[in-house]
Amino acid sequence: MKDVRALFFDVFGTLMDWRTSVAREAEQILKPLGYVLDWLAFADAWRDEYQPAMEEVRSGRSAFCKLDVLHRRNLERILPRFGVSGLAEDAARNLNLGWHRLNAWPEVPGALARLKKHFLLAPVSNGNVSLMVDLARRNNLPWDAILGAEIAGDYKPRPRVYLRACEAFDLAPGACMMVAAHTRDLLAAAALGLRIGHVARPNERGPGKGETQPTAPVDVAAASLEDLASKLGA
Amino acid sequence: MKDVRALFFDVFGTLMDWRTSVAREAEQILKPLGYVLDWLAFADAWRDEYQPAMEEVRSGRSAFCKLDVLHRRNLERILPRFGVSGLAEDAARNLNLGWHRLNAWPEVPGALARLKKHFLLAPVSNGNVSLMVDLARRNNLPWDAILGAEIAGDYKPRPRVYLRACEAFDLAPGACMMVAAHTRDLLAAAALGLRIGHVARPNERGPGKGETQPTAPVDVAAASLEDLASKLGA
Repeated sequence: MKDVRALFFDVFGTLMDWRTSVAREAEQILKPLGYVLDWLAFADAWRDEYQPAMEEVRSGRSAFCKLDVLHRRNLERILPRFGVSGLAEDAARNLNLGWHRLNAWPEVPGALARLKKHFLLAPVSNGNVSLMVDLARRNNLPWDAILGAEIAGDYKPRPRVYLRACEAFDLAPGACMMVAAHTRDLLAAAALGLRIGHVARPNERGPGKGETQPTAPVDVAAASLEDLASKLGA
Repeated sequence: MKDVRALFFDVFGTLMDWRTSVAREAEQILKPLGYVLDWLAFADAWRDEYQPAMEEVRSGRSAFCKLDVLHRRNLERILPRFGVSGLAEDAARNLNLGWHRLNAWPEVPGALARLKKHFLLAPVSNGNVSLMVDLARRNNLPWDAILGAEIAGDYKPRPRVYLRACEAFDLAPGACMMVAAHTRDLLAAAALGLRIGHVARPNERGPGKGETQPTAPVDVAAASLEDLASKLGA
Protein backbone atom coordinates (compact mmCIF):
# COMPACT_ATOMS: atom_id res chain seq x y z
CA MET A 1 0.00 0.00 0.00
CA LYS A 2 3.06 2.24 0.28
CA ASP A 3 3.00 2.75 -3.49
CA VAL A 4 -0.39 4.44 -3.46
CA ARG A 5 -0.02 8.11 -4.41
CA ALA A 6 -3.56 9.07 -5.43
CA LEU A 7 -7.01 8.38 -4.06
CA PHE A 8 -10.02 8.41 -6.36
CA PHE A 9 -13.44 8.80 -4.80
CA ASP A 10 -16.89 7.72 -5.68
CA VAL A 11 -19.14 10.59 -4.64
CA PHE A 12 -22.89 9.77 -4.57
CA GLY A 13 -23.39 7.63 -1.51
CA THR A 14 -19.71 7.34 -0.61
CA LEU A 15 -19.09 11.02 0.20
CA MET A 16 -22.57 12.50 -0.15
CA ASP A 17 -25.84 11.70 1.55
CA TRP A 18 -27.79 12.07 -1.70
CA ARG A 19 -31.03 10.59 -0.31
CA THR A 20 -31.90 13.06 2.43
CA SER A 21 -30.39 15.93 0.43
CA VAL A 22 -32.52 15.29 -2.66
CA ALA A 23 -35.60 14.76 -0.47
CA ARG A 24 -34.93 18.11 1.21
CA GLU A 25 -34.46 19.89 -2.14
CA ALA A 26 -37.66 18.38 -3.54
CA GLU A 27 -39.62 19.47 -0.49
CA GLN A 28 -38.18 22.99 -0.54
CA ILE A 29 -39.01 23.46 -4.20
CA LEU A 30 -42.26 21.53 -4.66
CA LYS A 31 -44.06 22.06 -1.35
CA PRO A 32 -44.49 25.84 -1.80
CA LEU A 33 -46.05 25.02 -5.21
CA GLY A 34 -48.72 22.99 -3.44
CA TYR A 35 -47.39 19.48 -4.00
CA VAL A 36 -47.34 17.04 -1.13
CA LEU A 37 -45.58 13.76 -1.66
CA ASP A 38 -43.33 11.23 0.03
CA TRP A 39 -40.06 13.13 -0.36
CA LEU A 40 -37.75 10.23 0.49
CA ALA A 41 -39.64 7.92 -1.86
CA PHE A 42 -39.28 10.59 -4.52
CA ALA A 43 -35.50 10.70 -3.98
CA ASP A 44 -35.33 6.91 -4.17
CA ALA A 45 -37.40 6.78 -7.36
CA TRP A 46 -35.18 9.39 -9.00
CA ARG A 47 -32.07 7.47 -8.01
CA ASP A 48 -33.56 4.22 -9.30
CA GLU A 49 -33.50 5.64 -12.83
CA TYR A 50 -29.77 6.39 -12.55
CA GLN A 51 -28.20 3.08 -13.58
CA PRO A 52 -30.62 2.36 -16.46
CA ALA A 53 -29.99 5.84 -17.92
CA MET A 54 -26.22 5.40 -17.80
CA GLU A 55 -26.54 1.92 -19.27
CA GLU A 56 -27.84 3.51 -22.49
CA VAL A 57 -24.49 5.28 -22.78
CA ARG A 58 -22.30 2.43 -21.57
CA SER A 59 -23.90 0.05 -24.06
CA GLY A 60 -23.26 2.47 -26.93
CA ARG A 61 -26.96 2.95 -27.66
CA SER A 62 -26.70 6.66 -26.77
CA ALA A 63 -23.82 9.11 -27.15
CA PHE A 64 -22.26 10.33 -23.93
CA CYS A 65 -23.98 13.25 -22.27
CA LYS A 66 -23.50 14.79 -18.84
CA LEU A 67 -25.19 13.33 -15.80
CA ASP A 68 -27.13 16.59 -15.40
CA VAL A 69 -28.85 15.75 -18.69
CA LEU A 70 -29.63 12.20 -17.59
CA HIS A 71 -30.90 13.45 -14.23
CA ARG A 72 -33.26 15.83 -16.02
CA ARG A 73 -34.57 13.11 -18.31
CA ASN A 74 -35.09 10.84 -15.31
CA LEU A 75 -36.90 13.62 -13.48
CA GLU A 76 -39.40 14.02 -16.32
CA ARG A 77 -39.98 10.27 -16.15
CA ILE A 78 -40.79 10.11 -12.45
CA LEU A 79 -42.74 13.34 -11.90
CA PRO A 80 -46.02 11.91 -13.30
CA ARG A 81 -45.71 8.89 -10.98
CA PHE A 82 -45.86 11.30 -8.05
CA GLY A 83 -48.75 13.27 -9.50
CA VAL A 84 -46.64 16.27 -10.45
CA SER A 85 -47.54 17.81 -13.80
CA GLY A 86 -47.12 21.18 -15.45
CA LEU A 87 -44.00 22.09 -13.48
CA ALA A 88 -42.57 25.39 -14.78
CA GLU A 89 -39.20 25.18 -16.51
CA ASP A 90 -37.48 27.27 -13.83
CA ALA A 91 -38.70 24.99 -11.05
CA ALA A 92 -37.74 21.84 -12.96
CA ARG A 93 -34.27 23.19 -13.68
CA ASN A 94 -33.82 24.25 -10.07
CA LEU A 95 -34.99 20.86 -8.83
CA ASN A 96 -32.53 19.13 -11.17
CA LEU A 97 -29.76 21.30 -9.73
CA GLY A 98 -30.69 19.88 -6.34
CA TRP A 99 -28.05 17.24 -7.13
CA HIS A 100 -25.50 20.07 -7.01
CA ARG A 101 -26.56 20.88 -3.44
CA LEU A 102 -25.98 17.57 -1.69
CA ASN A 103 -24.56 17.48 1.81
CA ALA A 104 -21.53 15.36 2.60
CA TRP A 105 -21.62 12.75 5.34
CA PRO A 106 -20.39 14.60 8.43
CA GLU A 107 -16.85 13.22 8.67
CA VAL A 108 -15.96 13.70 5.00
CA PRO A 109 -14.43 17.23 4.88
CA GLY A 110 -12.17 16.57 7.86
CA ALA A 111 -11.04 13.20 6.60
CA LEU A 112 -10.25 14.56 3.12
CA ALA A 113 -8.19 17.35 4.70
CA ARG A 114 -6.12 14.69 6.48
CA LEU A 115 -5.76 12.57 3.35
CA LYS A 116 -4.73 15.58 1.25
CA LYS A 117 -1.46 15.81 3.18
CA HIS A 118 -0.48 12.35 1.94
CA PHE A 119 -2.22 11.72 -1.37
CA LEU A 120 -3.42 13.36 -4.53
CA LEU A 121 -7.21 13.48 -4.33
CA ALA A 122 -9.82 13.49 -7.08
CA PRO A 123 -13.44 12.50 -7.47
CA VAL A 124 -13.89 9.74 -10.03
CA SER A 125 -17.63 10.02 -10.12
CA ASN A 126 -20.30 9.68 -12.75
CA GLY A 127 -21.31 13.26 -11.94
CA ASN A 128 -20.25 16.01 -14.33
CA VAL A 129 -17.55 18.59 -13.65
CA SER A 130 -19.90 21.46 -12.72
CA LEU A 131 -21.78 19.21 -10.33
CA MET A 132 -18.52 18.13 -8.66
CA VAL A 133 -17.37 21.75 -8.43
CA ASP A 134 -20.59 22.83 -6.75
CA LEU A 135 -20.41 19.96 -4.26
CA ALA A 136 -16.78 20.81 -3.51
CA ARG A 137 -17.57 24.47 -2.87
CA ARG A 138 -20.55 23.59 -0.68
CA ASN A 139 -18.77 20.94 1.39
CA ASN A 140 -15.13 22.13 1.38
CA LEU A 141 -13.72 19.21 -0.58
CA PRO A 142 -10.04 19.88 -1.34
CA TRP A 143 -9.72 18.22 -4.76
CA ASP A 144 -6.51 18.39 -6.76
CA ALA A 145 -8.49 17.88 -9.96
CA ILE A 146 -11.96 16.86 -11.07
CA LEU A 147 -11.71 13.56 -12.93
CA GLY A 148 -14.40 10.99 -13.73
CA ALA A 149 -17.09 10.35 -16.32
CA GLU A 150 -17.15 13.70 -18.12
CA ILE A 151 -13.38 13.63 -18.62
CA ALA A 152 -13.52 10.05 -19.88
CA GLY A 153 -16.66 10.36 -22.00
CA ASP A 154 -18.20 7.23 -20.49
CA TYR A 155 -19.72 6.06 -17.23
CA LYS A 156 -18.41 3.81 -14.48
CA PRO A 157 -17.94 0.92 -14.26
CA ARG A 158 -16.55 1.12 -17.82
CA PRO A 159 -12.74 0.71 -17.70
CA ARG A 160 -12.03 3.94 -19.54
CA VAL A 161 -13.26 6.05 -16.61
CA TYR A 162 -10.76 4.62 -14.11
CA LEU A 163 -7.88 4.43 -16.60
CA ARG A 164 -8.38 8.00 -17.82
CA ALA A 165 -8.09 9.14 -14.20
CA CYS A 166 -4.79 7.29 -13.72
CA GLU A 167 -3.46 8.77 -16.98
CA ALA A 168 -4.40 12.30 -15.95
CA PHE A 169 -2.19 11.95 -12.87
CA ASP A 170 0.57 10.14 -14.82
CA LEU A 171 0.26 7.21 -12.45
CA ALA A 172 0.13 3.47 -13.03
CA PRO A 173 -3.14 1.90 -11.84
CA GLY A 174 -1.26 0.26 -8.96
CA ALA A 175 -0.35 3.70 -7.61
CA CYS A 176 -4.03 4.67 -7.40
CA MET A 177 -6.75 3.59 -5.00
CA MET A 178 -10.46 3.75 -5.80
CA VAL A 179 -12.54 4.48 -2.70
CA ALA A 180 -16.25 3.68 -2.73
CA ALA A 181 -19.15 2.40 -0.67
CA HIS A 182 -20.16 0.10 -3.53
CA THR A 183 -18.35 -3.18 -4.11
CA ARG A 184 -19.33 -3.24 -7.79
CA ASP A 185 -17.48 0.03 -8.44
CA LEU A 186 -14.44 -1.27 -6.59
CA LEU A 187 -14.28 -4.59 -8.42
CA ALA A 188 -14.29 -2.81 -11.78
CA ALA A 189 -11.32 -0.72 -10.61
CA ALA A 190 -9.48 -3.71 -9.14
CA ALA A 191 -9.79 -5.60 -12.44
CA LEU A 192 -7.66 -2.83 -14.00
CA GLY A 193 -4.98 -3.00 -11.33
CA LEU A 194 -6.09 -0.20 -9.02
CA ARG A 195 -6.03 -0.67 -5.26
CA ILE A 196 -9.46 -0.51 -3.67
CA GLY A 197 -10.81 0.84 -0.40
CA HIS A 198 -14.34 0.29 0.89
CA VAL A 199 -16.19 2.72 3.13
CA ALA A 200 -19.31 1.44 4.87
CA ARG A 201 -22.47 3.48 4.30
CA PRO A 202 -25.08 1.32 5.96
CA ASN A 203 -27.82 3.94 5.62
CA GLU A 204 -27.21 5.16 2.07
CA ARG A 205 -30.67 4.23 0.77
CA GLY A 206 -32.40 4.55 4.12
CA PRO A 207 -31.94 2.94 7.53
CA GLY A 208 -30.16 -0.36 7.05
CA LYS A 209 -30.12 -0.03 3.27
CA GLY A 210 -26.50 0.28 2.27
CA GLU A 211 -23.29 -1.75 2.24
CA THR A 212 -22.12 -2.32 5.81
CA GLN A 213 -19.08 -4.09 4.44
CA PRO A 214 -17.65 -5.10 1.08
CA THR A 215 -19.14 -8.21 -0.53
CA ALA A 216 -15.76 -9.21 -1.98
CA PRO A 217 -12.13 -8.90 -0.84
CA VAL A 218 -10.69 -5.36 -0.83
CA ASP A 219 -7.34 -3.82 0.10
CA VAL A 220 -8.85 -1.74 2.90
CA ALA A 221 -12.29 -1.87 4.50
CA ALA A 222 -13.25 1.10 6.66
CA ALA A 223 -16.20 2.06 8.83
CA SER A 224 -15.95 5.71 7.76
CA LEU A 225 -13.68 8.02 5.81
CA GLU A 226 -11.90 8.95 9.04
CA ASP A 227 -11.30 5.26 9.62
CA LEU A 228 -9.94 4.94 6.08
CA ALA A 229 -7.58 7.88 6.69
CA SER A 230 -6.28 6.21 9.84
CA LYS A 231 -5.85 2.87 8.10
CA LEU A 232 -3.88 4.58 5.32
CA GLY A 233 -1.62 6.24 7.89
CA ALA A 234 -2.93 9.75 7.24
CA MET B 1 -18.74 42.52 -16.49
CA LYS B 2 -21.31 41.68 -13.83
CA ASP B 3 -22.25 38.53 -15.74
CA VAL B 4 -18.78 36.99 -15.40
CA ARG B 5 -18.92 33.94 -13.14
CA ALA B 6 -15.72 32.08 -14.01
CA LEU B 7 -12.14 33.11 -14.66
CA PHE B 8 -9.91 30.97 -16.88
CA PHE B 9 -6.16 31.46 -16.59
CA ASP B 10 -3.26 31.06 -18.89
CA VAL B 11 -0.47 29.66 -16.74
CA PHE B 12 3.02 29.76 -18.34
CA GLY B 13 4.07 33.39 -18.22
CA THR B 14 0.78 34.72 -16.88
CA LEU B 15 0.88 33.00 -13.48
CA MET B 16 4.30 31.32 -13.55
CA ASP B 17 7.78 32.69 -14.04
CA TRP B 18 8.79 29.77 -16.26
CA ARG B 19 12.05 31.36 -17.42
CA THR B 20 13.97 31.68 -14.16
CA SER B 21 12.35 28.50 -12.82
CA VAL B 22 13.44 26.33 -15.75
CA ALA B 23 16.90 27.91 -15.68
CA ARG B 24 17.16 27.06 -11.98
CA GLU B 25 16.02 23.47 -12.55
CA ALA B 26 18.48 22.98 -15.41
CA GLU B 27 21.33 24.31 -13.30
CA GLN B 28 20.40 22.15 -10.29
CA ILE B 29 20.22 19.00 -12.39
CA LEU B 30 22.95 19.50 -15.02
CA LYS B 31 25.65 21.40 -13.12
CA PRO B 32 26.42 18.52 -10.69
CA LEU B 33 26.83 16.34 -13.79
CA GLY B 34 29.62 18.63 -14.98
CA TYR B 35 27.73 20.67 -17.57
CA VAL B 36 28.17 24.42 -17.63
CA LEU B 37 25.92 26.39 -19.91
CA ASP B 38 23.94 29.60 -20.16
CA TRP B 39 20.97 28.48 -18.07
CA LEU B 40 18.64 31.30 -19.07
CA ALA B 41 19.49 30.82 -22.73
CA PHE B 42 18.74 27.12 -22.26
CA ALA B 43 15.31 27.95 -20.80
CA ASP B 44 14.62 30.32 -23.69
CA ALA B 45 15.67 27.75 -26.28
CA TRP B 46 13.43 25.11 -24.71
CA ARG B 47 10.50 27.49 -24.67
CA ASP B 48 11.15 28.48 -28.31
CA GLU B 49 10.28 24.91 -29.37
CA TYR B 50 6.92 25.13 -27.60
CA GLN B 51 4.71 26.73 -30.25
CA PRO B 52 6.12 24.73 -33.21
CA ALA B 53 5.56 21.46 -31.33
CA MET B 54 1.94 22.32 -30.54
CA GLU B 55 1.38 23.46 -34.10
CA GLU B 56 1.93 19.86 -35.23
CA VAL B 57 -1.11 18.90 -33.16
CA ARG B 58 -3.22 21.96 -33.95
CA SER B 59 -2.69 21.44 -37.67
CA GLY B 60 -3.81 17.82 -37.42
CA ARG B 61 -0.41 16.47 -38.54
CA SER B 62 0.04 14.74 -35.16
CA ALA B 63 -2.47 13.22 -32.77
CA PHE B 64 -2.91 15.02 -29.46
CA CYS B 65 -0.42 14.14 -26.76
CA LYS B 66 0.28 15.77 -23.42
CA LEU B 67 2.55 18.77 -23.13
CA ASP B 68 4.93 16.67 -21.00
CA VAL B 69 5.54 14.54 -24.09
CA LEU B 70 6.14 17.58 -26.29
CA HIS B 71 8.44 19.11 -23.67
CA ARG B 72 10.50 15.92 -23.64
CA ARG B 73 10.75 15.81 -27.42
CA ASN B 74 11.79 19.47 -27.43
CA LEU B 75 14.38 18.78 -24.75
CA GLU B 76 16.00 16.09 -26.88
CA ARG B 77 16.11 18.59 -29.72
CA ILE B 78 17.91 21.35 -27.83
CA LEU B 79 20.32 19.38 -25.63
CA PRO B 80 22.87 18.86 -28.46
CA ARG B 81 22.84 22.59 -29.21
CA PHE B 82 24.11 23.18 -25.68
CA GLY B 83 26.71 20.44 -25.89
CA VAL B 84 24.82 18.04 -23.65
CA SER B 85 24.93 14.43 -24.78
CA GLY B 86 24.52 11.05 -23.13
CA LEU B 87 22.21 12.33 -20.41
CA ALA B 88 20.90 9.40 -18.32
CA GLU B 89 17.19 8.67 -18.59
CA ASP B 90 16.57 9.53 -14.93
CA ALA B 91 18.21 12.93 -15.30
CA ALA B 92 16.38 13.70 -18.55
CA ARG B 93 13.04 12.73 -17.00
CA ASN B 94 13.75 14.78 -13.91
CA LEU B 95 14.78 17.77 -16.01
CA ASN B 96 11.56 17.47 -18.03
CA LEU B 97 9.60 17.49 -14.77
CA GLY B 98 11.25 20.83 -14.02
CA TRP B 99 8.18 22.31 -15.75
CA HIS B 100 6.15 20.86 -12.86
CA ARG B 101 8.26 22.88 -10.39
CA LEU B 102 7.77 26.42 -11.64
CA ASN B 103 7.37 29.28 -9.19
CA ALA B 104 4.44 31.65 -9.46
CA TRP B 105 4.95 35.38 -9.78
CA PRO B 106 4.88 36.63 -6.17
CA GLU B 107 1.39 38.17 -6.07
CA VAL B 108 -0.40 35.23 -7.70
CA PRO B 109 -1.45 33.04 -4.71
CA GLY B 110 -2.86 35.98 -2.76
CA ALA B 111 -4.71 37.40 -5.74
CA LEU B 112 -6.25 34.01 -6.59
CA ALA B 113 -7.43 33.63 -3.00
CA ARG B 114 -9.24 36.98 -3.33
CA LEU B 115 -10.73 36.06 -6.69
CA LYS B 116 -11.90 32.66 -5.44
CA LYS B 117 -14.46 34.38 -3.19
CA HIS B 118 -16.17 35.84 -6.24
CA PHE B 119 -15.52 33.55 -9.21
CA LEU B 120 -15.03 29.95 -10.23
CA LEU B 121 -11.35 29.55 -11.08
CA ALA B 122 -9.64 27.15 -13.46
CA PRO B 123 -6.43 27.05 -15.44
CA VAL B 124 -7.07 26.88 -19.17
CA SER B 125 -3.50 26.15 -20.06
CA ASN B 126 -1.73 24.05 -22.65
CA GLY B 127 -0.08 22.19 -19.76
CA ASN B 128 -1.40 18.74 -18.87
CA VAL B 129 -3.44 17.91 -15.78
CA SER B 130 -0.59 16.43 -13.72
CA LEU B 131 1.58 19.45 -14.48
CA MET B 132 -1.19 21.81 -13.37
CA VAL B 133 -1.77 19.76 -10.21
CA ASP B 134 1.92 19.90 -9.29
CA LEU B 135 2.06 23.66 -9.86
CA ALA B 136 -1.08 24.13 -7.77
CA ARG B 137 0.32 22.12 -4.87
CA ARG B 138 3.66 23.94 -5.01
CA ASN B 139 2.18 27.43 -5.25
CA ASN B 140 -1.12 27.13 -3.35
CA LEU B 141 -3.38 27.76 -6.33
CA PRO B 142 -7.02 27.23 -5.27
CA TRP B 143 -8.49 25.81 -8.48
CA ASP B 144 -12.06 24.62 -8.69
CA ALA B 145 -11.13 22.30 -11.55
CA ILE B 146 -8.27 21.70 -13.95
CA LEU B 147 -9.44 22.51 -17.47
CA GLY B 148 -7.45 23.23 -20.63
CA ALA B 149 -5.69 21.37 -23.41
CA GLU B 150 -5.70 17.83 -22.01
CA ILE B 151 -9.43 17.99 -21.32
CA ALA B 152 -10.12 19.38 -24.80
CA GLY B 153 -7.69 17.17 -26.72
CA ASP B 154 -6.21 20.14 -28.57
CA TYR B 155 -4.00 23.15 -27.91
CA LYS B 156 -4.77 26.85 -27.55
CA PRO B 157 -5.52 28.98 -29.45
CA ARG B 158 -7.81 26.36 -31.06
CA PRO B 159 -11.46 27.22 -30.24
CA ARG B 160 -12.23 23.82 -28.74
CA VAL B 161 -9.98 24.46 -25.73
CA TYR B 162 -11.85 27.60 -24.60
CA LEU B 163 -15.30 26.24 -25.44
CA ARG B 164 -14.70 22.93 -23.66
CA ALA B 165 -13.82 24.90 -20.52
CA CYS B 166 -17.07 26.91 -20.71
CA GLU B 167 -19.04 23.69 -21.21
CA ALA B 168 -17.41 22.02 -18.20
CA PHE B 169 -18.70 24.83 -15.99
CA ASP B 170 -22.11 24.91 -17.76
CA LEU B 171 -21.53 28.55 -18.59
CA ALA B 172 -22.05 30.56 -21.77
CA PRO B 173 -18.81 32.06 -23.12
CA GLY B 174 -20.01 35.51 -22.08
CA ALA B 175 -20.06 34.39 -18.45
CA CYS B 176 -16.37 33.44 -18.62
CA MET B 177 -13.26 35.58 -18.73
CA MET B 178 -9.93 34.41 -20.13
CA VAL B 179 -7.00 35.97 -18.29
CA ALA B 180 -3.57 35.99 -19.93
CA ALA B 181 -0.40 37.98 -20.45
CA HIS B 182 -0.53 37.21 -24.17
CA THR B 183 -2.83 39.16 -26.47
CA ARG B 184 -2.95 36.33 -29.03
CA ASP B 185 -4.45 33.94 -26.46
CA LEU B 186 -7.01 36.58 -25.46
CA LEU B 187 -8.10 37.40 -28.99
CA ALA B 188 -8.80 33.73 -29.71
CA ALA B 189 -11.03 33.62 -26.63
CA ALA B 190 -12.75 36.91 -27.45
CA ALA B 191 -13.63 35.64 -30.93
CA LEU B 192 -15.72 32.94 -29.23
CA GLY B 193 -17.56 35.39 -26.97
CA LEU B 194 -15.49 35.15 -23.80
CA ARG B 195 -14.57 38.27 -21.88
CA ILE B 196 -10.84 38.91 -21.75
CA GLY B 197 -8.47 40.29 -19.13
CA HIS B 198 -4.83 41.15 -19.74
CA VAL B 199 -2.13 41.00 -17.08
CA ALA B 200 1.16 42.73 -17.86
CA ARG B 201 4.29 40.55 -17.55
CA PRO B 202 6.95 42.87 -18.86
CA ASN B 203 9.81 40.54 -17.90
CA GLU B 204 8.38 37.19 -18.96
CA ARG B 205 11.18 36.38 -21.42
CA GLY B 206 13.81 38.43 -19.64
CA PRO B 207 14.11 42.08 -18.64
CA GLY B 208 11.87 44.15 -20.90
CA LYS B 209 10.81 41.09 -22.92
CA GLY B 210 7.13 40.61 -22.28
CA GLU B 211 3.80 42.33 -22.93
CA THR B 212 3.62 45.53 -20.86
CA GLN B 213 0.10 46.06 -22.17
CA PRO B 214 -2.32 44.37 -24.56
CA THR B 215 -1.75 45.02 -28.25
CA ALA B 216 -5.51 45.04 -28.95
CA PRO B 217 -8.60 46.16 -27.01
CA VAL B 218 -9.50 44.02 -23.97
CA ASP B 219 -12.24 44.15 -21.34
CA VAL B 220 -9.76 44.68 -18.50
CA ALA B 221 -6.06 45.53 -18.59
CA ALA B 222 -4.16 45.07 -15.34
CA ALA B 223 -0.63 45.68 -14.12
CA SER B 224 -0.68 42.53 -11.99
CA LEU B 225 -3.09 39.85 -10.81
CA GLU B 226 -3.76 41.88 -7.65
CA ASP B 227 -4.66 44.80 -9.89
CA LEU B 228 -6.97 42.54 -11.91
CA ALA B 229 -8.67 41.38 -8.70
CA SER B 230 -9.25 44.99 -7.65
CA LYS B 231 -10.57 45.93 -11.08
CA LEU B 232 -13.01 43.00 -10.94
CA GLY B 233 -14.24 44.13 -7.52
CA ALA B 234 -12.70 41.17 -5.65
